[in-house]
Amino acid sequence: MDRPATTLDELNVADEQRFVACLDGIFEHAPWVAGETAHLRPFATVSHLHDELMRTVRRKPREDVLAFLNGHPALGGKEARAGTVTPQSAREQAGLGFVSLTGEQARELEAVNAAFLFKFGFPFIICARRHTRPSILRALRERSGNSIDQEVANAPAEIEHITRLRLVDRVTGPGAPQVAGRLSTHVLDTHAGRPAQGVRIELFEVAYAAPVRLAEAETNHEGRTDQPLLAGVPLRIGRYELVFHMGAYYRAHSVLGAGELFLDEVSIRFGISEPEGHYHVPLVATPWSYSTYRGS
Amino acid sequence: MDRPATTLDELNVADEQRFVACLDGIFEHAPWVAGETAHLRPFATVSHLHDELMRTVRRKPREDVLAFLNGHPALGGKEARAGTVTPQSAREQAGLGFVSLTGEQARELEAVNAAFLFKFGFPFIICARRHTRPSILRALRERSGNSIDQEVANAPAEIEHITRLRLVDRVTGPGAPQVAGRLSTHVLDTHAGRPAQGVRIELFEVAYAAPVRLAEAETNHEGRTDQPLLAGVPLRIGRYELVFHMGAYYRAHSVLGAGELFLDEVSIRFGISEPEGHYHVPLVATPWSYSTYRGS
Amino acid sequence: MDRPATTLDELNVADEQRFVACLDGIFEHAPWVAGETAHLRPFATVSHLHDELMRTVRRKPREDVLAFLNGHPALGGKEARAGTVTPQSAREQAGLGFVSLTGEQARELEAVNAAFLFKFGFPFIICARRHTRPSILRALRERSGNSIDQEVANAPAEIEHITRLRLVDRVTGPGAPQVAGRLSTHVLDTHAGRPAQGVRIELFEVAYAAPVRLAEAETNHEGRTDQPLLAGVPLRIGRYELVFHMGAYYRAHSVLGAGELFLDEVSIRFGISEPEGHYHVPLVATPWSYSTYRGS
Amino acid sequence: MDRPATTLDELNVADEQRFVACLDGIFEHAPWVAGETAHLRPFATVSHLHDELMRTVRRKPREDVLAFLNGHPALGGKEARAGTVTPQSAREQAGLGFVSLTGEQARELEAVNAAFLFKFGFPFIICARRHTRPSILRALRERSGNSIDQEVANAPAEIEHITRLRLVDRVTGPGAPQVAGRLSTHVLDTHAGRPAQGVRIELFEVAYAAPVRLAEAETNHEGRTDQPLLAGVPLRIGRYELVFHMGAYYRAHSVLGAGELFLDEVSIRFGISEPEGHYHVPLVATPWSYSTYRGS
Repeated sequence: MDRPATTLDELNVADEQRFVACLDGIFEHAPWVAGETAHLRPFATVSHLHDELMRTVRRKPREDVLAFLNGHPALGGKEARAGTVTPQSAREQAGLGFVSLTGEQARELEAVNAAFLFKFGFPFIICARRHTRPSILRALRERSGNSIDQEVANAPAEIEHITRLRLVDRVTGPGAPQVAGRLSTHVLDTHAGRPAQGVRIELFEVAYAAPVRLAEAETNHEGRTDQPLLAGVPLRIGRYELVFHMGAYYRAHSVLGAGELFLDEVSIRFGISEPEGHYHVPLVATPWSYSTYRGS
Repeated sequence: MDRPATTLDELNVADEQRFVACLDGIFEHAPWVAGETAHLRPFATVSHLHDELMRTVRRKPREDVLAFLNGHPALGGKEARAGTVTPQSAREQAGLGFVSLTGEQARELEAVNAAFLFKFGFPFIICARRHTRPSILRALRERSGNSIDQEVANAPAEIEHITRLRLVDRVTGPGAPQVAGRLSTHVLDTHAGRPAQGVRIELFEVAYAAPVRLAEAETNHEGRTDQPLLAGVPLRIGRYELVFHMGAYYRAHSVLGAGELFLDEVSIRFGISEPEGHYHVPLVATPWSYSTYRGS
Repeated sequence: MDRPATTLDELNVADEQRFVACLDGIFEHAPWVAGETAHLRPFATVSHLHDELMRTVRRKPREDVLAFLNGHPALGGKEARAGTVTPQSAREQAGLGFVSLTGEQARELEAVNAAFLFKFGFPFIICARRHTRPSILRALRERSGNSIDQEVANAPAEIEHITRLRLVDRVTGPGAPQVAGRLSTHVLDTHAGRPAQGVRIELFEVAYAAPVRLAEAETNHEGRTDQPLLAGVPLRIGRYELVFHMGAYYRAHSVLGAGELFLDEVSIRFGISEPEGHYHVPLVATPWSYSTYRGS
Repeated sequence: MDRPATTLDELNVADEQRFVACLDGIFEHAPWVAGETAHLRPFATVSHLHDELMRTVRRKPREDVLAFLNGHPALGGKEARAGTVTPQSAREQAGLGFVSLTGEQARELEAVNAAFLFKFGFPFIICARRHTRPSILRALRERSGNSIDQEVANAPAEIEHITRLRLVDRVTGPGAPQVAGRLSTHVLDTHAGRPAQGVRIELFEVAYAAPVRLAEAETNHEGRTDQPLLAGVPLRIGRYELVFHMGAYYRAHSVLGAGELFLDEVSIRFGISEPEGHYHVPLVATPWSYSTYRGS
């Protein structure tokens, strides 16, 4: 975070200049958003503040909205690498690896981005913190086919996601909007009729050539992990894989001998489409069978 | 096959010289096995013939058994590449890719093989047609730790597998031993309550760096594949993966929309340890859940 | 069966009088149906014959159809008990126990039947061999709310079922229509990873105060019953229960000790709505879990 | 409860007479148990107090233990009905319905009890609050076959259960022993991929001719019941049935039409053998499949 968090109470009583300064950078190159919302104070909740900021954006005439959209950097484009974007944007995109694309990938991305900009007159805007690289590329490809009216609606929807996350980082107080999702699991040993304790679990993001391991955990006496596998942040839209080391577990319990096991490392591949959702993906297993489902 | 198959009836009435000639090469460099079994004719079944051939081997004094074991080529060794082994052995090993190992791999394999030969006084013998490369390497590693008495017992057990397969290739007739396994699957759509028709299924061998695709099929109106995924040969001991393209199936039935699917390509990884066994690995699935088990 | 079966070949060459005689009673009090269909001979298949008989019925003017419907006996009514209905009807209804209703039940049924007759001008017609008593009562209740046009359509649809079954009993030959369903099961022991052999299974019809046991079987080495639980006849629409004696099975395999079992007699209750369908209802079980599904 | 609860602190500082009076009736007709344990005060936890009370019982000579056992009333016997037992015993047995047996049942129970008393010289003792009537009758039948040494060990084990429950009712304070179990459930709708809200669930005890309904609940937005189905007391050893009204649920969501449903009321029958255990029995269901398991 660039700057210390402010409380909603402080914001509610600050003079307008300080209010605008505190929210600087949340709306890209657009201090007027805070400026035109200040007179609506006090806000009872952080969500209420965010709602009003977005209302200020949406009630502007179309040409102003277009100018505002044009203030956003192209995703992974030259500006991003040259440091002319806001530090917020650079950091958010860096998490996805976009600023470190190879030369060829960057040229390709620039080409699609450029085509988008040429077609719509403003850059492709997406809340990078809610996405994986493959899901961004898919969205870019799909949204390139939209009409301009669809994109004039889509872009503020993405800005709503982007600024909600930034606001939650910057302002503390009651009624903070829900921005984090959660991924959890649970392993049931139906050979012995009890939770499976001591199962090693790995979580991967799998859309890349080589899967990227995001987390590793071991089940406790309840068959759960002590912490959720993912929590506290939006779950990035994308494809994932859970690997449960069941062969090692059953061997440790002397259920299975040497030889090739029927089930050894059990893999469950699943997609996440709701970054703020709760995904519970349990495994109910014997050495000869298993099942899984989207639980809660 | 090198030579045309003979019928058991022909073998039962052939003179001894021809009987031995017909079975040439089934026992590696050991025509005496057939020679000393010939007087037991007639055999009612091919299995009976094979049992008696093995009994001839096993009742020999230990020094003769050791000499016989020494007649077998080292797995993937120089002989194999130099062509001094029997055509049978070369072909059976070729199926696994052993004769085309890289220089480094071949040197490593030779080292372990040489250590085995040095310890036991005879080469490591294994029925290659019942194995994948990883399972052979594992067996080699594990059996290297055995006592000589264990290996003097293991080696004929492997020769029994090797020669049973060769005999079935060479001799037709009643009571042929069971040498083939079968792998089948079945897809149930429990969202709609019917067999899932039109699901694309891929089968891979997965122990290698890059999975090797062995089969591809589409389910018919019964949710089954028209042919078993593997049949007619021993199922090689090893690890496999079935991939069911369930996302495409449910999209084709308009159950699912665009967006990231919870379940798309469902993967089931399993091991095969019984080459002559029947493995039925069904998938019971909705867009939000699935289960599998070793069926029959 | 009242009379010996005739072959389709015989029917195709018989004179019209004999053709009509052979089909006597298939259409209730309506020899004209056969009479007006005779000139369409020869029929290639039994199904084709049945289709044409029904077409003869359906192309009649509405008043003739109504008269024809009126030729059918009221279900379980006085006629049935008094023996004035055709022997076919009496026998088909007897299978359901309708003719042996208690006085009070009979009065109730007569009342609903009478209301139906009063409303529509013809009796409630249903193919009793495809139903259980509860499903007939439900149909009677539901169809009482229909419009007359719906019932003028429903009644011939039921007559089509009734006469198809009668025709298959009476005429043999190629292309017989599918009139039988099948109920089968399969027990998988996923504690041991094999089919469960020796599991006692009971099948009940469960809509009555006291369940009625229809079948009992024991699983063979494939985990299946040697014969389907129901086959060769239409599966009566209704509710059923399968009871699997899993506790006894697992005790026999020393998996479970004395004490109260978590799972003992596993019950699966299910409905049948397609009398000609194939219902496969497997059980996949450990001592601590089970699953079932409509299979195939 | 007869009397107000006392705190452990009060007991720790009371004079011996009051200590004995406060614990009166916990050990049947045996104030000496408390008397001989009083000097060990103070007790850090309620569990510790109970442990020491039991140690006082167990270290007595065998003849004193036998006399103590003889102070217990026969289960459901004449004494129970005549009111000569302690109010505690009468109330605990009443929960099971034993005091209201029919004449014939009472005579039968008295006969088995009398045989037990004749064989062992003391009455059959069991912690009624941890049992259902069928499990008590089974225990009586099984334990009748024991040796006297086994029963001299079993009886104090049951007294330990009985007195632990009484003590927890009477004395509050830190370190209370765990005497309550919990039964919970959870319904997952894997047709829609979410918790099933609004499913009616009934819980029955099923060993009797007519099942007895113990609880009824409806699932909330998490697919769970707001309260556990059973909690706060020992779960009585016995057989139970959960009935999930899935047909009504799927009909309410327009997934299913009229007609006979494949799955309507889903029944899961299970046994409880650990009165202090946590039983979680979830249902994972579509209109065409379901699974359950002992969860946690």
